[in-house]
Amino acid sequence: MAQNHNDFLKIKAFASDVDGVMTDGGVLCDLEGQLYRIFGAKDGFAIRMATMNGFPFAFITGGRSASIRERALTIGVKERDIYLGSRDKESDFMDFCRRHGLKPEEVMYFGDDVPDIGVMRMSGIGVCPADAAEDVIAAADCVSPFPGGKGCVRDMVERVMKAQNRWTFDTAEYKRLY
Amino acid sequence: MAQNHNDFLKIKAFASDVDGVMTDGGVLCDLEGQLYRIFGAKDGFAIRMATMNGFPFAFITGGRSASIRERALTIGVKERDIYLGSRDKESDFMDFCRRHGLKPEEVMYFGDDVPDIGVMRMSGIGVCPADAAEDVIAAADCVSPFPGGKGCVRDMVERVMKAQNRWTFDTAEYKRLY
Amino acid sequence: MAQNHNDFLKIKAFASDVDGVMTDGGVLCDLEGQLYRIFGAKDGFAIRMATMNGFPFAFITGGRSASIRERALTIGVKERDIYLGSRDKESDFMDFCRRHGLKPEEVMYFGDDVPDIGVMRMSGIGVCPADAAEDVIAAADCVSPFPGGKGCVRDMVERVMKAQNRWTFDTAEYKRLY
Amino acid sequence: MAQNHNDFLKIKAFASDVDGVMTDGGVLCDLEGQLYRIFGAKDGFAIRMATMNGFPFAFITGGRSASIRERALTIGVKERDIYLGSRDKESDFMDFCRRHGLKPEEVMYFGDDVPDIGVMRMSGIGVCPADAAEDVIAAADCVSPFPGGKGCVRDMVERVMKAQNRWTFDTAEYKRLY
Repeated sequence: MAQNHNDFLKIKAFASDVDGVMTDGGVLCDLEGQLYRIFGAKDGFAIRMATMNGFPFAFITGGRSASIRERALTIGVKERDIYLGSRDKESDFMDFCRRHGLKPEEVMYFGDDVPDIGVMRMSGIGVCPADAAEDVIAAADCVSPFPGGKGCVRDMVERVMKAQNRWTFDTAEYKRLY
Repeated sequence: MAQNHNDFLKIKAFASDVDGVMTDGGVLCDLEGQLYRIFGAKDGFAIRMATMNGFPFAFITGGRSASIRERALTIGVKERDIYLGSRDKESDFMDFCRRHGLKPEEVMYFGDDVPDIGVMRMSGIGVCPADAAEDVIAAADCVSPFPGGKGCVRDMVERVMKAQNRWTFDTAEYKRLY
Repeated sequence: MAQNHNDFLKIKAFASDVDGVMTDGGVLCDLEGQLYRIFGAKDGFAIRMATMNGFPFAFITGGRSASIRERALTIGVKERDIYLGSRDKESDFMDFCRRHGLKPEEVMYFGDDVPDIGVMRMSGIGVCPADAAEDVIAAADCVSPFPGGKGCVRDMVERVMKAQNRWTFDTAEYKRLY
Repeated sequence: MAQNHNDFLKIKAFASDVDGVMTDGGVLCDLEGQLYRIFGAKDGFAIRMATMNGFPFAFITGGRSASIRERALTIGVKERDIYLGSRDKESDFMDFCRRHGLKPEEVMYFGDDVPDIGVMRMSGIGVCPADAAEDVIAAADCVSPFPGGKGCVRDMVERVMKAQNRWTFDTAEYKRLY
């Protein structure tokens, strides 16, 4: 378990799977097979705080829906940091690191299922929600007390930013950006 | 904790954040990035009771969706008391107070995240749901036993109105207004 | 508490509110203010069983959405037994009783909020879900162990029909009707 | 209870009801009466793993929505193994077995309500979620500790495949197929 203060000081960026991490895993399917997700507002606020205060944040997901991209952009994630339809998360994660000049061990990664295990091992701190798949819980550095979509991302991003004294909310900046 | 009977007697109006207070924080994102929320019927009934019995009720939210406005209007909130896309909740809250000739301490405010903290401190009673962000729980006058979207607003509005003997349901009036 | 076997033997029909009884109270609002609900499949199956085996079933709701009507028709409720936009549930309930030649005491009624209290008192057995409003719990003959949308209607309809030996599923009849 | 290792070794295919098994039973109804469901991503991953590793998987449901078909196809279920609008699940189950040259006792079946009981008895292992209907719990060989839509299918498919050493995730194959 990598939950002590010093581990949090090295983190310079975040990357995360979507389904089961930023959501409870539920996907609403429409008549054309398009999938919709329910995201959490408090996770969204934390991601805004992170991107507003200089932490790159990547979405790396097997999902392909335009709605994921829209959600990510709304909360401050940069277009190029959104990896949709990812079939090899490790190479997408390395691309994100390279583009931002980050070492993998400087990134906290959130995942909940088997395709996330490789990246979790490469990343500095691999986090999973309380209700992650059995194999993922075994592979994680840190198991959040919160289940997917219910505060797992919020909790860890807030902890990392508070450890670095960067959890600050500036209404003026917020008005400028959003 | 400001939960005793006398505190409730001074309350003449309500103002509330939306995400995480009137909802569980979940936002459903469509292909154009438009967000939809799930509101609670029992909260809605309480807001109808409040507006029907003379309590102004404001929605103050960072969200911009037309669906929030529609929901507010349906349950008796006045057009001018709906603040969408709020980036500075304190000034929107003061505008609401001024227009209705209210002192901030006569208003109960509901919030669940960091942008609500300023208003919670200005208001007469700052309430947060059981699952509010850590910093908000620390700042609230009153932490509801109910989580966001699961009865927090209903419970407090009903308590305030019962304390003032104004929790009365009149079918004839209801037919006239809705 | 009217939960013994003999009470169930007198029941010849059912009537129910929608929000908070057949749903968990959540209403999804679209951009035009139209509301959508999430209904439970197991409640739906019980209502089909009831209507297939001779129990009239009424929906009496303040809601006006065409989606409620569609849901009701799909599970065997008759067009005339669907009361949308009800502003006086007692008179709609009496209309349902009159049309079917029922005494109010032969009908089990499900409700969860203040506008349901009058009908609950008129009906043979007034049932509310575990998470009904405080005043409704006080007025109910029977408080279900299940919350709204999570089996309250299913449980009671199944109990009544089993008490009368009418809980039978006939695949041939099911194919003919649905 | 058929939960020991040897029972899992005989399973060559899976068949499942949809509402209340792959979902929590909730159906979202639109203005035309069309129903939408929320599926679980981790169940979806397990069904992909099963179909990718040679286990036929059938959806047998009374529902008729095109959205169910779309969801099934997305996670690797074959067009002919999707039985929508099923009014006699036993004959649809036998059709699935015949087409794949399977004995009913080689198939694990998932169901949660009365129309599933017949198939559960015919199948090799009849599984139901923790919140299945009373009569189904009594008829099941195995009651999952997980409720519908919250991991019941994932858990059992993963157990069966692990017992047979076929729970393997191959990124290359995954890229080729999806």
